[in-house]
Amino acid sequence: MLAMGLRARAAADQVRLAPARVRSAALIAMAAALRTRAAAILKANARDLERARTNGIGEALIDRLALTPGRVEAMAAAVDEVAAFPDPLAVETARWIRPNGLDFARVRTPLGVLAIIYESRPNVTADAAALCLRSGNVAILRSGSDCLDSAMAIHAAVIEGLVAAGLPQDSVQLVDTPDRAAVGALLTGLDGTIDLLIPRGGKSLVARVQAEARVPVLGHLEGINHTYLHASADADMATAIVVNAKMRRVSVCGSTETLLVDRAGGARLLPPVAGALMAAGCELRGDAEARALVPAMRAATDEDWGREFLAPILAVRVVDGLKAALDHIRRHGSGHTEAIVAGDAEAAAAFLSAVDSAIVLWNASTQFADGGEFGFGGEIGISTSRLHARGPVGAEQLTSYKYVVRGTGQTRP
Amino acid sequence: MLAMGLRARAAADQVRLAPARVRSAALIAMAAALRTRAAAILKANARDLERARTNGIGEALIDRLALTPGRVEAMAAAVDEVAAFPDPLAVETARWIRPNGLDFARVRTPLGVLAIIYESRPNVTADAAALCLRSGNVAILRSGSDCLDSAMAIHAAVIEGLVAAGLPQDSVQLVDTPDRAAVGALLTGLDGTIDLLIPRGGKSLVARVQAEARVPVLGHLEGINHTYLHASADADMATAIVVNAKMRRVSVCGSTETLLVDRAGGARLLPPVAGALMAAGCELRGDAEARALVPAMRAATDEDWGREFLAPILAVRVVDGLKAALDHIRRHGSGHTEAIVAGDAEAAAAFLSAVDSAIVLWNASTQFADGGEFGFGGEIGISTSRLHARGPVGAEQLTSYKYVVRGTGQTRP
Repeated sequence: MLAMGLRARAAADQVRLAPARVRSAALIAMAAALRTRAAAILKANARDLERARTNGIGEALIDRLALTPGRVEAMAAAVDEVAAFPDPLAVETARWIRPNGLDFARVRTPLGVLAIIYESRPNVTADAAALCLRSGNVAILRSGSDCLDSAMAIHAAVIEGLVAAGLPQDSVQLVDTPDRAAVGALLTGLDGTIDLLIPRGGKSLVARVQAEARVPVLGHLEGINHTYLHASADADMATAIVVNAKMRRVSVCGSTETLLVDRAGGARLLPPVAGALMAAGCELRGDAEARALVPAMRAATDEDWGREFLAPILAVRVVDGLKAALDHIRRHGSGHTEAIVAGDAEAAAAFLSAVDSAIVLWNASTQFADGGEFGFGGEIGISTSRLHARGPVGAEQLTSYKYVVRGTGQTRP
Repeated sequence: MLAMGLRARAAADQVRLAPARVRSAALIAMAAALRTRAAAILKANARDLERARTNGIGEALIDRLALTPGRVEAMAAAVDEVAAFPDPLAVETARWIRPNGLDFARVRTPLGVLAIIYESRPNVTADAAALCLRSGNVAILRSGSDCLDSAMAIHAAVIEGLVAAGLPQDSVQLVDTPDRAAVGALLTGLDGTIDLLIPRGGKSLVARVQAEARVPVLGHLEGINHTYLHASADADMATAIVVNAKMRRVSVCGSTETLLVDRAGGARLLPPVAGALMAAGCELRGDAEARALVPAMRAATDEDWGREFLAPILAVRVVDGLKAALDHIRRHGSGHTEAIVAGDAEAAAAFLSAVDSAIVLWNASTQFADGGEFGFGGEIGISTSRLHARGPVGAEQLTSYKYVVRGTGQTRP
């Protein structure tokens, strides 16, 4: 593992200085290699699936693990998209001249060596490699052991793309053992060679990485997201947004987990919203006031507030106005994504300003919490940290910067 | 200590939402209070100095510790400057509209609760408080025990300013005990209440914080800075820049510690540069080639490369062109500040692009590595990290951001 770190560091110096067109060429070649290697990738995936079934792994996980020709093509298309995305490097993000004539520029630079630890989603191997390369970083990937065969087959395509563009093979390395000790080694930082750890997966993985890592971590906590219906909300819009925010996909981190409804608008808003949710197959767990308006609801328990269901279940609470909604969110939210539905622009502005979450929305579904929807050309996750990157982490968020100062012989008095 | 963390967290929610003019008013009142309390501050400082002398503390440290009426006025003026600096908060740093009509804005937000651990420089109490408040953060300050009396007297002025503007006293708290266990408590993050630790001081303090902290650290390593004289450099400009870069102040992190000279220009450049340095009282430690050109130099040892002398001593090496200079910097630098002196614009561009340091300069002194010189209105340090903030850390660098998304009822397909 230490040797991997040293190889990554050596590759980083080359990739950092490789022109954008070389990195784009590598990405395009990667996408092509994913297509030509599709049969080999599917064969490797079949071995993973067989092992998973033998190990009695549940169907939800099997579905996450399984590749099809369509999913391989989607993976290749995603890499092509990253290749076409504007290069984030060497861009001047600020420029100014001081009274002494010194000319300051702030330019983007790569972060260096990123270690990405993920679970059994084979596509992350290609996604992460592409985003790292687009931003001039090199990567050490640690796939979930359940999909290691698939990851290795995808990694072969990544290497093919790198080599085709003349970039070092070590620009994207994959830990080729299911041994869990490898994760422990990555958490130590491999003797200072890893600049940033990115855990991408469930709560327990992220929690372990954040607790044990001896190097910086870009993690995301759960998305305990709230949608708040202000008394001024339009009932039809509220219904459409809440049904989408909860039910479009219940397993994504941008789904709404708690609905807050203004007391003043409750009788008008909650019955139609709750009816549409239940018709869509959603279980509602309400407080006493919500149940008084919609008796078909189950009673919520204290554990239902601030809970990430990741299932067709929604906690529902009636609140006494904006301030009470903000208090509830402050207490139970995870700082991920919060939405207000309101006709009243002042109330909306107050909500957008006061809520301290990575993403705050007005009159839109929380399911827009996604790098692609932001126009970032893919994402490696959604950061709930307030340091370095917050919200969707795309190629641009995987960069640092430096200051380039041009003078004509200036000395400091 | 845990109670301090909880109080800070409660204050953070208020300060975060306080308008810019309220935070400016607090800063102006702080500066005024520093002036009206100057006598009390000097008296407290006299107690620190007496204790320091009793403890046999060296003169360099005593000088760092000592306040004068002029230094108190400079402290107040610095706070006034931060008050006048443009507010970094609530600024939109990006805005775009997606094809579905969603309107995205990225706006700056505070980081939250910052813990700043510093050594015996009394002015840091006022500087750090001012920068934290300018950026909407709250602070827990841990002063070096040698200057605790001074820090407490300065802190009283800070509190006076906060109260005058109606902000909570707990916006800036000072650990009022010299007990070293307090540092250990801060390193644990006080039960999740601290968002960021900023060690400001020498190598051993920063190293301890980076090794032991269980929360993110914004640290700076040493400034092992290089100035490289390209063969195309003008001899007069090279002389002026190198003498300034080394000798203006030898104890600051932006001072040059190693001089690299192109072999092709060595005979022309090194004798005048070395002569001026020696005339200014600088000891030179050269490799064999440098000594062949300037026999008065001492011989450098291997330990002199990559060493932060913080003294009137300079390591000098003759290198075989740009690539050799870059190799030396990659091997021995700390990623802080590097300069090239060159007439050849292409060589300069190659240097500025290839050197992976927070600050790279062309034809200017490395001593410009300073937030004030960048126009940042003060700094809390210079980050050599590539995460979150790199280079001078002013009020703007102490912020995060969030995304504000405005819709008209959009749901995600």
